[in-house]
Amino acid sequence: MTYALHTTVSQPYAAVLDQVRTALSEQGFGVLTEIDLQATMKAKLGAGIAPQVILGACRPPLAYAALQAEPSIGLLLPCNVVVRALDETSTAVEAIDPQMMVAMTDNPELQSVSDDATTRLRAALTSLGGSQVKAA
Amino acid sequence: MTYALHTTVSQPYAAVLDQVRTALSEQGFGVLTEIDLQATMKAKLGAGIAPQVILGACRPPLAYAALQAEPSIGLLLPCNVVVRALDETSTAVEAIDPQMMVAMTDNPELQSVSDDATTRLRAALTSLGGSQVKAA
Repeated sequence: MTYALHTTVSQPYAAVLDQVRTALSEQGFGVLTEIDLQATMKAKLGAGIAPQVILGACRPPLAYAALQAEPSIGLLLPCNVVVRALDETSTAVEAIDPQMMVAMTDNPELQSVSDDATTRLRAALTSLGGSQVKAA
Repeated sequence: MTYALHTTVSQPYAAVLDQVRTALSEQGFGVLTEIDLQATMKAKLGAGIAPQVILGACRPPLAYAALQAEPSIGLLLPCNVVVRALDETSTAVEAIDPQMMVAMTDNPELQSVSDDATTRLRAALTSLGGSQVKAA
């Protein structure tokens, strides 16, 4: 099973993070949550990791439809999008593969919602102009 | 595949939500994110749903170990815990089943982290005094 849609962008982390926010907005996703993992690991453990943020992306009509089909689907929401620095000039951008919702729940009523979310997240990642978006 | 650990507590939503926060803290989880789904659906769509919150629970040492084993694991973090009203006197509490991390990634290096997280989330849900905690 795959769980990630992945692209690598040949630009620095901070610039890519800005572009990801714009790309998600253009695809109708709001960002409901944001976790700066680098800052969290530093603050809680004193551990150093490369810059990385987890954005919790939500398109409310899709979330609503998913809740109607599967009452426990909140456990798999929002759709996480990870932006993480690979080095000073390249950045990985990954989105959860929404098809995993169908696989995890074994609920075919989620198929159309998952398909719509997949199309939009793929479009957002493609718009960044990085490597071909692949499920991994 | 199961993706949820589930219990039903015979108490009103607001009281259970407070208990869940305490229970997570006692098991070493911080709450990094919080989404009031009822408020979000009302604000964005004008749609009414029962009270429901998604808590993003994170135990930093587990998150750090998971990141070392699987660089893309941020897509499956934090561990979501959903609290949702079933009616005025009963409340569902569900946690993501951390074993799904191993299944989704097919990475056995995540097994010990997932086992630890599962033990702690099960203990948190059990401490609420509701129905027997089940994977579902």
